[in-house]
Amino acid sequence: MNINSERLWNRIHKLSEIGKDENGGVTRLSFTETERKAKDLVVTFMKDAGLAVREDEIGNLIGRKEGAIFNSQVVMTGSHIDSVISGGNFDGPAGVLSAIEALQTMNEKGIVTESPLEVIVFTDEEGARFSTGMLGSLSAAGKLSKEELYSAKDKNGVTIAEAMKQAGLDPELAPNAKRNPEEIKAYVELHIEQGKVLENADASVGIVTGIVGVDWYRVTLKGEAGHAGTTPMGLRKDPLAAAARIISYGEEMARNEKSAVVTVGQIEVKPGGINIIPGEVAFSFDIRDINKENMNDIFEKLKAYIETTCEERGIELEIEQLHSLDPSPCSERIMKKMEESFTETEVQSIKLISGAGHDAMVMASITDMGMIFIRSKDGISHNPKEWSDQKDLAMGAEVLFTTLVKLAS
Amino acid sequence: MNINSERLWNRIHKLSEIGKDENGGVTRLSFTETERKAKDLVVTFMKDAGLAVREDEIGNLIGRKEGAIFNSQVVMTGSHIDSVISGGNFDGPAGVLSAIEALQTMNEKGIVTESPLEVIVFTDEEGARFSTGMLGSLSAAGKLSKEELYSAKDKNGVTIAEAMKQAGLDPELAPNAKRNPEEIKAYVELHIEQGKVLENADASVGIVTGIVGVDWYRVTLKGEAGHAGTTPMGLRKDPLAAAARIISYGEEMARNEKSAVVTVGQIEVKPGGINIIPGEVAFSFDIRDINKENMNDIFEKLKAYIETTCEERGIELEIEQLHSLDPSPCSERIMKKMEESFTETEVQSIKLISGAGHDAMVMASITDMGMIFIRSKDGISHNPKEWSDQKDLAMGAEVLFTTLVKLAS
Repeated sequence: MNINSERLWNRIHKLSEIGKDENGGVTRLSFTETERKAKDLVVTFMKDAGLAVREDEIGNLIGRKEGAIFNSQVVMTGSHIDSVISGGNFDGPAGVLSAIEALQTMNEKGIVTESPLEVIVFTDEEGARFSTGMLGSLSAAGKLSKEELYSAKDKNGVTIAEAMKQAGLDPELAPNAKRNPEEIKAYVELHIEQGKVLENADASVGIVTGIVGVDWYRVTLKGEAGHAGTTPMGLRKDPLAAAARIISYGEEMARNEKSAVVTVGQIEVKPGGINIIPGEVAFSFDIRDINKENMNDIFEKLKAYIETTCEERGIELEIEQLHSLDPSPCSERIMKKMEESFTETEVQSIKLISGAGHDAMVMASITDMGMIFIRSKDGISHNPKEWSDQKDLAMGAEVLFTTLVKLAS
Repeated sequence: MNINSERLWNRIHKLSEIGKDENGGVTRLSFTETERKAKDLVVTFMKDAGLAVREDEIGNLIGRKEGAIFNSQVVMTGSHIDSVISGGNFDGPAGVLSAIEALQTMNEKGIVTESPLEVIVFTDEEGARFSTGMLGSLSAAGKLSKEELYSAKDKNGVTIAEAMKQAGLDPELAPNAKRNPEEIKAYVELHIEQGKVLENADASVGIVTGIVGVDWYRVTLKGEAGHAGTTPMGLRKDPLAAAARIISYGEEMARNEKSAVVTVGQIEVKPGGINIIPGEVAFSFDIRDINKENMNDIFEKLKAYIETTCEERGIELEIEQLHSLDPSPCSERIMKKMEESFTETEVQSIKLISGAGHDAMVMASITDMGMIFIRSKDGISHNPKEWSDQKDLAMGAEVLFTTLVKLAS
């Protein structure tokens, strides 16, 4: 193994001390003093690694190792160090610290690549403070509007712009964080899986084939509220009974899918009395797949079923799309380099898709993108119990190291 | 027609003025000044009807017409005049004012019955203030514990006992409101249907065959919360997906029943994120029927299905019974008198069950009980839109008048 597993593991633990709460989790929200301390610590790691450090206009931290060929496209790698409230110690830091470890290993081994390499720590991936994530990668991709900095607020009413100023950043200059896509050769991110696919396959590390698209819908069914005792079954227009059939249909359909998932995470009934037939029910559908056509196909089938069910039952229907994000396939070229790296490091290669969004998804809009997943214990994340083993992290970092060397050569 | 339809209709409207709100509904909570005003108005009606008026220790208002035979058992009739918050003008008052009208008609026509007759206005049937209804009838039946007067509180923290004192009643004396069952011959109540059975049968008035029993259950299913994107369908333990099947099963089963109804009026999921597979879901079941064995049978089938579904899906299960009330069949003797009255008044006789609880249900525990339902427009109640036509109310009062004369003779 080329990389230094102990050093990487120690850095994970040092970073975990910043924003630590009593239950062992961390809370590092964007543009706070806690985040500043975490960034300062990461700067010391970057400097130890021999990288040239700068911070861009949105607060992304960048550590650069120059390449041999002047003006060559840069190979970028990174993740984030902000967290959700009471989050874990690996979601984000695993990618950032593996990236630093990979570049430090190159420097220590005197590996000079043709292309320069950059470790990037993206600002506010989680969106835990302003309910609007991926601030750093969206800025780098030139996809964050300045208006959003002035409109999105945290729970105390502080806008992103105000928070940036408090952190010493000028929101007016934020657009300057945009990177020229022509100057970027590739973006590679290591991340914890946040699921159980690797665990169930008994694999330490996996190659991500793509990040799923996400469509969110809100279905509202309006029936007729009534007294639970005085309305015979045959005279009811019960929207919850209709919703139950629809939810079952959605689950059954998704169970027959290869990679698509369908989730109902929210449901509310009105008026909500134990002895009152509901008059209205609203619930959500979260549809994800790596294939956009299939997502549309699932939604159309679901919609047809909802319409038939509601028509049969005399129920009014409204379906609203709340959010839509296309799938981001990973670069074939990068996956191939990763497979070679797996072969060279004698690690079994497992392929899987990412069901969660990452900065890599945003970067895929401006450059070739690849992702490496490491095993998550019990699939838990966004929780103090989030855990990945030292060995798995080291194997991931080793594959990252080898892949980056190949990509930069 | 014997009774005076105009007078009855005018009294409905006069009573509707007390506690009236801007949307045409009424709010008359127990032991309030509004309720006092409504009682005072009803007292004037009782006195107009030639009744001897008293108020008992729980606040029940009683108007009595003496019978010809000394110490004969009393025939009671009545309902309530308290309302839910923003309730309608017929739920309760229809029964009270029809009862007064029936006795006034007897007095005007010089009808002397063997048994005395009493109109009773029961205190706090709805339970809208203290979440514990039927205070008056429970007291009359000797089934209200004094402890409850000191424990149940309204939303301002005022106990029933405190509210009684404010209304000039002594909670310590409340047990004295108990009636001796041996002194009561029958209890008959006219009430709005609060459903659509009469409307669908195009009938003005119906004979109630019994009041359904009510069993309330709370089902809690614990699965495994997870990320909607990173947990493949096959690795999920989604309690909402299980709940959807269970709710559908319950509805389907009830649709094949003759008179039983099964309702899910409440459902809550945790944690409730649009992109999170629920970890826990809790929902209610309201099971009603006129036949207790059938209610138990429905519950057992439901329970078996819940258990199988949860076992198949690796979901933990808890079922809690929140409330149980046995069905109250109406007296055959009283129903027969009502049928005769229908024939005499040339009104078509429709039989139906009461899916809602009434003071009559409590009175059934101490005496023979009968109920007359009048048609509710669109089945609406507990709402300002609650409505019954003058003609339907008059026909109901006429049947009540005839039935009471028969019962008291």
